[in-house]
Amino acid sequence: MRVRIALKEILSNKSTLLLKMNPVHKQVPVLIHNGKPVSESLIIVEYIDEVWKNKVPLLPSDPCDRANARFWANYVDSKIFNIGKLVWATKGEVQEAAKKELIECFKQLEMELGERHYFGGKNIGLVDIPLIPFYSWFYALEMCGNLSIIHECAKLVSWARRCMEKQSVSASLPDQYKVYDHILELRDKYGVH
Amino acid sequence: MRVRIALKEILSNKSTLLLKMNPVHKQVPVLIHNGKPVSESLIIVEYIDEVWKNKVPLLPSDPCDRANARFWANYVDSKIFNIGKLVWATKGEVQEAAKKELIECFKQLEMELGERHYFGGKNIGLVDIPLIPFYSWFYALEMCGNLSIIHECAKLVSWARRCMEKQSVSASLPDQYKVYDHILELRDKYGVH
Repeated sequence: MRVRIALKEILSNKSTLLLKMNPVHKQVPVLIHNGKPVSESLIIVEYIDEVWKNKVPLLPSDPCDRANARFWANYVDSKIFNIGKLVWATKGEVQEAAKKELIECFKQLEMELGERHYFGGKNIGLVDIPLIPFYSWFYALEMCGNLSIIHECAKLVSWARRCMEKQSVSASLPDQYKVYDHILELRDKYGVH
Repeated sequence: MRVRIALKEILSNKSTLLLKMNPVHKQVPVLIHNGKPVSESLIIVEYIDEVWKNKVPLLPSDPCDRANARFWANYVDSKIFNIGKLVWATKGEVQEAAKKELIECFKQLEMELGERHYFGGKNIGLVDIPLIPFYSWFYALEMCGNLSIIHECAKLVSWARRCMEKQSVSASLPDQYKVYDHILELRDKYGVH
């Protein structure tokens, strides 16, 4: 999803003829460009930014702002998936702790967003792109975790809705109910009841 | 260590007056430059490369080579410390599996190095910098794990020795025996006998 969004932001949907994507490691997308593979979603997003650098920039130009964007992109990458999984795949104390931690992460991200339209400012960028795919998990997280993300993190949900107004995002994310169905199947498989 | 090497490579030891470093999160160095903090060692290395970009480059210029360097830097960052810790902090089957995995990682890295002098080519770069600090752990890993890294991965050890010829590296790494003593203390603390 991250790579699709980045490509669509930059190439306005004209990219599909140019590029082929293929999974190699388990969760890692691979972008094949000019016959060469590029792996790991955040690295691909930076690659896309560097190759098509005269169009919409996905990273700020100031080195300090770039480092800050990379810091928060890594924060999202290392935390949300793992904590989110504990919310939908566990019960009891572990789940309660994960719910608390997930909301704390979201609140941290709301603080970092501040009054900006996107984490990238006027355009979506290196932090928005890894974070927004989790929006399609919100419904499942709310159902499985018996929590209300919109109630706890209204600002983050507003940000997500602004992102969803972009075609690059809405065309790349799966339906929230389909994600929920998928997670219910996984819960069955893992024996979480 | 990574940040010290990168700064010394680029600023030839003139940097200490300019900069202050400080730990914030547990293992994360923070570079304070012009009053602003930059966190996480790999992000700091890229920051250093971008700020002093007219001097020695730490990243290649081609976007595909840059993505490849980032991939391997992340590979080092996510694997070596964790697997290494299992080698010195466990015993029995877990330790045996970790020893095998560590050597496999090193062999992967040897393949990536190929016939190059450094991962960065003629100069050390984004992959050499996160990897070389582990060289000061080799002796401890060998002692604790009853293994011979030089025997299994001669090419990697040759690379490490070439790196150690650089002042930026040798002045930033602690003594191998001190690291071993430190690890023996930790093993005592964890009750590994």
